[in-house]
Amino acid sequence: MLEELKERVFLENLKLVKNGLVVLTWGNVSAIDRARGLVVIKPSGVDYSVMKAEDMVVVDMNGNTVEGDLRPSTDLPTHLYLYRAFPEIGGVVHTHSVNASVWAQAGRDIPAYGTTHADVFYGTIPCTRPLTEEEVENAYEYNTGKVIAGCFSERDYLATPAAIVKNHGPFVWGVTPEKAVENAVTLESVAEMALKTEFIGGAENVVPQYLLDKHYFRKHGKHAYYGQEK
Amino acid sequence: MLEELKERVFLENLKLVKNGLVVLTWGNVSAIDRARGLVVIKPSGVDYSVMKAEDMVVVDMNGNTVEGDLRPSTDLPTHLYLYRAFPEIGGVVHTHSVNASVWAQAGRDIPAYGTTHADVFYGTIPCTRPLTEEEVENAYEYNTGKVIAGCFSERDYLATPAAIVKNHGPFVWGVTPEKAVENAVTLESVAEMALKTEFIGGAENVVPQYLLDKHYFRKHGKHAYYGQEK
Amino acid sequence: MLEELKERVFLENLKLVKNGLVVLTWGNVSAIDRARGLVVIKPSGVDYSVMKAEDMVVVDMNGNTVEGDLRPSTDLPTHLYLYRAFPEIGGVVHTHSVNASVWAQAGRDIPAYGTTHADVFYGTIPCTRPLTEEEVENAYEYNTGKVIAGCFSERDYLATPAAIVKNHGPFVWGVTPEKAVENAVTLESVAEMALKTEFIGGAENVVPQYLLDKHYFRKHGKHAYYGQEK
Amino acid sequence: MLEELKERVFLENLKLVKNGLVVLTWGNVSAIDRARGLVVIKPSGVDYSVMKAEDMVVVDMNGNTVEGDLRPSTDLPTHLYLYRAFPEIGGVVHTHSVNASVWAQAGRDIPAYGTTHADVFYGTIPCTRPLTEEEVENAYEYNTGKVIAGCFSERDYLATPAAIVKNHGPFVWGVTPEKAVENAVTLESVAEMALKTEFIGGAENVVPQYLLDKHYFRKHGKHAYYGQEK
Repeated sequence: MLEELKERVFLENLKLVKNGLVVLTWGNVSAIDRARGLVVIKPSGVDYSVMKAEDMVVVDMNGNTVEGDLRPSTDLPTHLYLYRAFPEIGGVVHTHSVNASVWAQAGRDIPAYGTTHADVFYGTIPCTRPLTEEEVENAYEYNTGKVIAGCFSERDYLATPAAIVKNHGPFVWGVTPEKAVENAVTLESVAEMALKTEFIGGAENVVPQYLLDKHYFRKHGKHAYYGQEK
Repeated sequence: MLEELKERVFLENLKLVKNGLVVLTWGNVSAIDRARGLVVIKPSGVDYSVMKAEDMVVVDMNGNTVEGDLRPSTDLPTHLYLYRAFPEIGGVVHTHSVNASVWAQAGRDIPAYGTTHADVFYGTIPCTRPLTEEEVENAYEYNTGKVIAGCFSERDYLATPAAIVKNHGPFVWGVTPEKAVENAVTLESVAEMALKTEFIGGAENVVPQYLLDKHYFRKHGKHAYYGQEK
Repeated sequence: MLEELKERVFLENLKLVKNGLVVLTWGNVSAIDRARGLVVIKPSGVDYSVMKAEDMVVVDMNGNTVEGDLRPSTDLPTHLYLYRAFPEIGGVVHTHSVNASVWAQAGRDIPAYGTTHADVFYGTIPCTRPLTEEEVENAYEYNTGKVIAGCFSERDYLATPAAIVKNHGPFVWGVTPEKAVENAVTLESVAEMALKTEFIGGAENVVPQYLLDKHYFRKHGKHAYYGQEK
Repeated sequence: MLEELKERVFLENLKLVKNGLVVLTWGNVSAIDRARGLVVIKPSGVDYSVMKAEDMVVVDMNGNTVEGDLRPSTDLPTHLYLYRAFPEIGGVVHTHSVNASVWAQAGRDIPAYGTTHADVFYGTIPCTRPLTEEEVENAYEYNTGKVIAGCFSERDYLATPAAIVKNHGPFVWGVTPEKAVENAVTLESVAEMALKTEFIGGAENVVPQYLLDKHYFRKHGKHAYYGQEK
């Protein structure tokens, strides 16, 4: 079932490797079929070089495996939380990409220092609060989703399609799994640029609001004029 | 029309990927046919891995598409501004290459710390002034060209064939599109070196004027002796 | 003899190159056959691009060559020391991977700043004390093993399967040579992240103990739930 | 003539690209045939992807072309100076590799922070004094050789086979062109490690003399025991 979606999720998982976002078996991409209430996700701890499209696991919204011989990614409950909390997203990505994870380790939001950032992320990319001991010990992956969603109680989750989890790493989403992976690639580049911007004294130099608006709305919304007509 | 120039522009766009200057669909190269007053430019937001030479868009100097089914790069008005302002250039490149963009984000000119810089850029590589809110909201890409050209009101645009746009990234040019891409590759390397030079305490250590002269004029002008005879 | 183990050791040595952990002829992987008391190790100073599985050298626990025409890696006595000191390990890796070596050169333990670290290393990765002049001049490689083992007199060597040798670089181990190489790849990533975490002000931000426990025990021990069932 | 040496010099030039030490047409490798007093060197400004072994230029010790249709590398007089000053070397390499050039730009010697350094460079890698205006304007490349050689008036040029030229970049040598390129690869790695070592507070942490001796003499001289017997 969902063979086409499995193929897409499989290909997007491979793109994580190709774009240098993951090493070993780290990272995972999922996609949702909202009509059927099913999620397709990478299996846990499988080597990218031998992984096949048919290894993708199909689960329901309670995390029960509907099809597939392998265990789904350990981070599944976080993915499911995000699909529930963010009803317009179609794909979720988790990586430990180096530069984005560094901001998570430092416990800092990623400031919007330039238009590479503004093209995809409408403002600061939030770092979550730390999980409490209680939240870590019980339903850790579910609670990881909760603290991410908590960053968007007063912000548009589609306008800033990523958060970094404190001491952990990035979760990124999009209206499709393809878009989610694109956003993860951009996030890693933006995180590297922000780090180096501070090295050479640029920490006070965030983009002005009007430039943020221009770049974001050049690519998003009804006045967008970047790319080809759909 | 302009099939040969399309092929060249296509190949130079691919070199951006090969040299690690762009990810996803970022970046664009154009070239001008001065005799006909036509510009060939990469289409907007097209994936490099599927792009073909015939996808290149031909536009006139007012930005009207003369040939091509796809929309030209969103940055076209900046390219056109530069072709008008700098009558001797034949190609323009725009990227968000990481290290050059970092200087743009920090709002700093790139100092000439060594001969890698001096071989191609005769002195500091300027960072533009910020665009005003008015300039961003109306004719943003045109005004981006204007602030770049403004850096060269008293400098030779061929002697320093690049500027970095504040909070944005580099625009680079050359007498041909091939030369423009070469200059973009050098800029990224120079930007990385400058950043790291400051890390280890070299910020006061700019090249002396006589060394800058030597390296620049070793490769440029009538006394040049680098490379093969033409 | 031990043809299968030679093949595995050979393949793991190649993975060091593939993962960017070594250049030139640097680095070495070994594995032990505990039942026979024999160790298989990379030959000294052989180019990875021409090395073959049959070039792997078989030695006994006293370092005498049992099979093979080439000299074993110079670091053999360190490997042997570790196999004796750590009876449950099956493979040892030594590299000069850049970021891990940098912490060795700075003489600092690598702090546990995030879950990438915690997934594999249960706490700080120790940097050894410096070897004394006497220890360097006599049986240097043996003494290198000794100072590494000394870091684990009160710690579990399987829970933190690596140490960095002061002014030198990392030694990493695992229950198999495959696991040892995986751990070496993770170490390099963790070392890069830790370095950059400090750059942006994260030096106080080590993972809380409960998060370290969660991530480590999610992957290790009887309550592990990451990956596929064995 | 010297077809075998041309082939070797050609292959070593390609290794510069393969090891990430050069971009575009930067960098050059030469070798000397001491018996005939002839030097084989890369042509100036030729693209590595189209360069052939027969493009290598043969020159005499006065820099006159003996065979070859192309101009020799502009840096030839520096190579010739080094062959005269250092009678035991067989190959010379010049690159603008990023991390080594950064130390040149900062005008600093590269401290010996670890054994990766000590394995190849017996102590600090010297940065030359700046060339005077007079030295730059007349016989610049010759004088570049002179300031390099000046660093070794009281040091063994084989024990530390590299110098970095202030505001410029590294020159590296060896008893063969193959060894010279190996040393250039090591230099770049060592330069990156040294830079990062200082970032995390290791600037006081140079290797003790006895460890420097151990690693250097483990690989060099009559008591060497690294690698295979010749």
